[in-house]
Amino acid sequence: MVQTSQISSPDQAIKPGATIGILGGGQLGRMLALAASRLGLRVHVFAPESGPAFDVCTRHTIAAYEDEAALTAFAQAVDVVTYEFENVPARTASVLNATRVVRPGADALAKTQDRLVEKTFLNNLGIPTAPFHQVDDAGGLARGVAQLGRPSILKTRRFGYDGKGQALVREGSDLAVIYRSLGAKPCILEGVVPFVKEVSVIAARGINGAFAAWDVCENTHDHHILSVTRAPAAISEQSAVEAMEMAKTIADALDYVGVIAVEMFLVEDKKADGAKVERLVVNEIAPRVHNSGHWTIDGAVTSQFEQHIRAICGWPLGSTRRHGRIEMTNLIGADVHQWHDLLGEPGACLHLYGKHDARPGRKMGHVTRVFPET
Amino acid sequence: MVQTSQISSPDQAIKPGATIGILGGGQLGRMLALAASRLGLRVHVFAPESGPAFDVCTRHTIAAYEDEAALTAFAQAVDVVTYEFENVPARTASVLNATRVVRPGADALAKTQDRLVEKTFLNNLGIPTAPFHQVDDAGGLARGVAQLGRPSILKTRRFGYDGKGQALVREGSDLAVIYRSLGAKPCILEGVVPFVKEVSVIAARGINGAFAAWDVCENTHDHHILSVTRAPAAISEQSAVEAMEMAKTIADALDYVGVIAVEMFLVEDKKADGAKVERLVVNEIAPRVHNSGHWTIDGAVTSQFEQHIRAICGWPLGSTRRHGRIEMTNLIGADVHQWHDLLGEPGACLHLYGKHDARPGRKMGHVTRVFPET
Repeated sequence: MVQTSQISSPDQAIKPGATIGILGGGQLGRMLALAASRLGLRVHVFAPESGPAFDVCTRHTIAAYEDEAALTAFAQAVDVVTYEFENVPARTASVLNATRVVRPGADALAKTQDRLVEKTFLNNLGIPTAPFHQVDDAGGLARGVAQLGRPSILKTRRFGYDGKGQALVREGSDLAVIYRSLGAKPCILEGVVPFVKEVSVIAARGINGAFAAWDVCENTHDHHILSVTRAPAAISEQSAVEAMEMAKTIADALDYVGVIAVEMFLVEDKKADGAKVERLVVNEIAPRVHNSGHWTIDGAVTSQFEQHIRAICGWPLGSTRRHGRIEMTNLIGADVHQWHDLLGEPGACLHLYGKHDARPGRKMGHVTRVFPET
Repeated sequence: MVQTSQISSPDQAIKPGATIGILGGGQLGRMLALAASRLGLRVHVFAPESGPAFDVCTRHTIAAYEDEAALTAFAQAVDVVTYEFENVPARTASVLNATRVVRPGADALAKTQDRLVEKTFLNNLGIPTAPFHQVDDAGGLARGVAQLGRPSILKTRRFGYDGKGQALVREGSDLAVIYRSLGAKPCILEGVVPFVKEVSVIAARGINGAFAAWDVCENTHDHHILSVTRAPAAISEQSAVEAMEMAKTIADALDYVGVIAVEMFLVEDKKADGAKVERLVVNEIAPRVHNSGHWTIDGAVTSQFEQHIRAICGWPLGSTRRHGRIEMTNLIGADVHQWHDLLGEPGACLHLYGKHDARPGRKMGHVTRVFPET
């Protein structure tokens, strides 16, 4: 963990009793609402349809993200606006921001919604990413493949998550077919990073520049969906420090306020003498609380959800100290039917999101286990 | 802590996604609702007026506890009914129970609403209480004082809390005036117990008789209102075991389901050789989650709120293991203005109840500090 000293004044702060406005009604909004409630705040959720957060919030608005009258009324009814997903349309953020401060701010959204913009931003900060090539048509894809080779990964620039909006360009793949399979949208071709593990840094930055990161965690995916997060990550101390420094560089560059997640690949290079050297490559930034930070609810002094609320309220950041060695397992689809066994397992901390249908691939809940540090 | 083995079947259990009905909309209902939400349950609060729990529940009903049509509609809309306060009218419980199971059951309410019934029940179980005398008029008070001496404490049999409904009978007190000062209601006169400290046991009993108690905690009051709870209590191991056994005896006798709090006095008797011997006297039973159990949210594997939800849903009870040495401080009235300093104190876990007016004597929130075990 990394934590910088901070100066915080109650004068700049949103007061207990105030209302937090959250765009998005999913499980992240739900857990943000629960954390805000613990701290005496009210929560107003804005979403196009009912979702898990609606059950625990003080008020909700059901309207489209393009409904400017509804957005303005919502902004007037709250004291600060935040969001649980990065694909908030720029126009939505700007309409809201005309009435109430939106945290994290518009720059964080602009830089993270588009993979091309994001990678360019990162490289300009001196932060390594996968090599990439802009693809605007099948010809651009051919030029990209000529440069990055096969296999490489074609991704839509916007609206991708959990492996959606991606296609692998293999030996023999028909480039025109692949480009069309992603809807012939603006894309980015990424070189394959030969990583040995995926890690993430969950961190927070306050309105006064204070910064706090939880220990780097290590993520295992199944069918492109996060399956297990372990903290701390089994990586070198030097890599851990470097990962947290990268997150701080990114947050500072965005003048960020709130919790930010930075997903990274760990690559092991072999030196001439056979020794292995670790190297980090940033995969993507999420300007929000993140699934790989859910372990902080039970496994750290301050959860990512409470920390996000603290940050956007202009409050002092809380301690990111871990309680032990942590394992967080997502309950995807039918996994949720283990609920009764998990309740009977001493020390297993069960979280369910209140979703009705346990459809395949759907995040239904998670379970966190905290073990004594070894 | 004490925890008995348990057998629990998902068939008897209320399922995630179900709705918990809570009578009462205060901070206890609020914290119950937050715990239920974490476990994927919905919450419907029934109360005569809006309160802190309304901000975090899925649905609410505002109606009198005597409104039988509203009670029945509420019961039909939920899967199990519970309550945050012991003064639920018997008729209310019976109307609800005609439609849905009420946990804890009617016997727990009947035995704990009336101080005379409660003390008689306890003595019949062989559990010591303060000596007491039934008082139905000023003459009864005179007979009681003749028996128990002065000082002694006159209390209304029903509806007392935080020192309300009590009067001290001193040397020279006018008995008729004192009796009238409590409204000339049915009363009980209690002998003064020369206690050295006040402790409480917070425990839970499941539908299958499983029992789990957190470590005994020690309570300090200020103007009759709980001020600080420390866990574990600085009492002998023998007293701690005895206290938890008393709680189990009580819960078993009530065929109790849910979290129960038993407040006790610790008395030190001096033996002929000058050695001190500890002795426990039960003060009162609360058939609900309790202020002296708030520390379990941050200080134990399972909080009293989650445990109550587990118990009333027929789920396995969770572990009551402590995370360290605990101190919980209530924020009463203007204490709540410390919120910003408390947020800046590393490791202080702040809970605010979302109440608007910080009136004197009003419980506005609490803060829990967890220290390494010494």
